[in-house]
Amino acid sequence: ASCPTLCFLPAVFQLLAEGKWVKLEQTTYMDPAGNTRTWETVKRTTRRTNTEADGVGIIALLKRTLHKDCVVMVKQFRPPLGCNTLEFPAGLIDEGETAEAAALRELKEETGYKGEVVGVTPVTCLDPGLSNCTTQIVLVNINGDDMENIHPTQQLEFVDVILLPLDEFQSKIDDLLRKEKIIVDSKVYIFAMGMVQAFFKPRELPVLKQ
Amino acid sequence: ASCPTLCFLPAVFQLLAEGKWVKLEQTTYMDPAGNTRTWETVKRTTRRTNTEADGVGIIALLKRTLHKDCVVMVKQFRPPLGCNTLEFPAGLIDEGETAEAAALRELKEETGYKGEVVGVTPVTCLDPGLSNCTTQIVLVNINGDDMENIHPTQQLEFVDVILLPLDEFQSKIDDLLRKEKIIVDSKVYIFAMGMVQAFFKPRELPVLKQ
Repeated sequence: ASCPTLCFLPAVFQLLAEGKWVKLEQTTYMDPAGNTRTWETVKRTTRRTNTEADGVGIIALLKRTLHKDCVVMVKQFRPPLGCNTLEFPAGLIDEGETAEAAALRELKEETGYKGEVVGVTPVTCLDPGLSNCTTQIVLVNINGDDMENIHPTQQLEFVDVILLPLDEFQSKIDDLLRKEKIIVDSKVYIFAMGMVQAFFKPRELPVLKQ
Repeated sequence: ASCPTLCFLPAVFQLLAEGKWVKLEQTTYMDPAGNTRTWETVKRTTRRTNTEADGVGIIALLKRTLHKDCVVMVKQFRPPLGCNTLEFPAGLIDEGETAEAAALRELKEETGYKGEVVGVTPVTCLDPGLSNCTTQIVLVNINGDDMENIHPTQQLEFVDVILLPLDEFQSKIDDLLRKEKIIVDSKVYIFAMGMVQAFFKPRELPVLKQ
């Protein structure tokens, strides 16, 4: 129905610069009013031909008898930001790999935990005004009572695993931010806000706003 | 406490290519084991000297008497992806502007609604393996009973405003995805997942997992 406003003609991509991992393109396209426009676009050079997503992000819930459910997070140095970040475990999808397999592999590598996929989102974009980069968020449960998950052995140097209780997720993140110089990934903070939002009873019909 | 593992030495940035809006750099840094490493980093050329965030994303709740609360979303063509996206309203912060002011300005431009800021997140990163790009998420309430918000006049061509009820946020997004070729922003989908997650009673202590 909205096609008259939002139908843009196919774009032409001109390469401006290409590194090993990242390239910069100028995109030329025509808007619905017939004007030719340009846009600077970033792309990863690593995207596989048979996948629509560059990578996966993993929301992993560690479930243990008589413990609160915890979200498994990673803290790591990120060269683009020049500081440490707090993120969901994440990584690029390998050739021929499904999002689910990539998620379980990355979770194991980054945190040592063996999980079970309980849900996968559609392909979503990360910074659509800047890049074509996409991710699928994979929901994973970890049975923390399993022998193999009691003392998980992580395979990456320089990545700290941090467990945050699901029911205090936002306040524990805020505590971390007060204690150290760290940048939180927007997806992490928004997941926390979504959980808080849900407790404000969105199912009630409001009456007479002031 | 984790400094021995996560203390990296300051980085050197070498410019590989620069467009009008975006530049590509090679970052050279030393890891805690003393190894010199490189990373390809994307930066916007537009970041203001006095702000830490490039832009804002706006979670705007439209509140009207006898209506369900709705999240105000935008659908627009995004040249980097070559298709339409479903996103929270968003935009870059202008020189000397606060995140709050940028959020209310962008919301008005993109949707026509006049809102009131009820919360702002810390600076968060968008794609920390790729870029230094950051955003602050601003929570905004819109009094939909106000005269000026009854027939909002939007100032941008080529942006469709879409209202999604908060209590059916994820299912309405999934409906849209079934109907048309559109890519949802990861923050939007994760906000929806956070709300669903919260209804699974995370405050209960689990017993005896199988």
